[in-house]
Amino acid sequence: MNLNIVLYQPEIPQNTGNIARTCVLTNSTLHLIKPLGFSIDDKAVKRSGLDYWSELKLEVHESYEDFINKYGDRRIFLASTHGGNYYNEESYKAGDFIMFGRESKGVPQDVHEAHTNIRVPMIKTSTRSLNLSNTVAIIAYEALRQMDFPDMK
Amino acid sequence: MNLNIVLYQPEIPQNTGNIARTCVLTNSTLHLIKPLGFSIDDKAVKRSGLDYWSELKLEVHESYEDFINKYGDRRIFLASTHGGNYYNEESYKAGDFIMFGRESKGVPQDVHEAHTNIRVPMIKTSTRSLNLSNTVAIIAYEALRQMDFPDMK
Repeated sequence: MNLNIVLYQPEIPQNTGNIARTCVLTNSTLHLIKPLGFSIDDKAVKRSGLDYWSELKLEVHESYEDFINKYGDRRIFLASTHGGNYYNEESYKAGDFIMFGRESKGVPQDVHEAHTNIRVPMIKTSTRSLNLSNTVAIIAYEALRQMDFPDMK
Repeated sequence: MNLNIVLYQPEIPQNTGNIARTCVLTNSTLHLIKPLGFSIDDKAVKRSGLDYWSELKLEVHESYEDFINKYGDRRIFLASTHGGNYYNEESYKAGDFIMFGRESKGVPQDVHEAHTNIRVPMIKTSTRSLNLSNTVAIIAYEALRQMDFPDMK
């Protein structure tokens, strides 16, 4: 297994579907922290990732606390729109966790402060940031590039 | 301007919307080669990228031939699912063009052979590849990383 991609209370099923696809294609595990903004059986998730869903290594956590109780001792990066190093300035290794906040409002302040923040450079003039599934793809592939794409070439 | 992102006859408006967002946030120009699978006024494009559409540097080309007549002397990479170097093995510079094929079936053989192919590593077992907007984000951000994210930090 290469990476652990963690979505904190994701809201938009198409994003989770695309991220599931990225996880399958990179041999990464997807962690979903409840509550989710959709059912995992939701047609939209299936439409975005249907061929993949059965191949997906998926862990669903009832709460952030449950997730931390299980994995709090692991290295967990948090993708943030402010603060922290740029994502390419960190060194990643197999088994790392990378967490992503809600599409609408990221993560609560205490979660924000509990992890090493990383961010993706963007032009400053815009108010919105990159699509969530794109942000996951960018950071995951930088981590995988550093690891020379294990079992992917 | 950093990069030129070229979509060859894109079919799915949500993808083009997300890619437009990536272009705005990276100071890249988006080129769309007709025919498109949707209207540029289509509500779905606007829903995916509305806040951005007016900020987008956009060029619409009536055909691949029109595009080549205008930009055929520039360096144009083609993202492919087979052949070519891995995307991170190429060196990119400002003004480079990176072209992406249709979601369903890529580009015709003659277009495939006319450009330097690059590809994104993926686990081999799956039949589908990464979502198009994710592929654009991964390759664009690798090119921008090599260029140290001009005007983006």
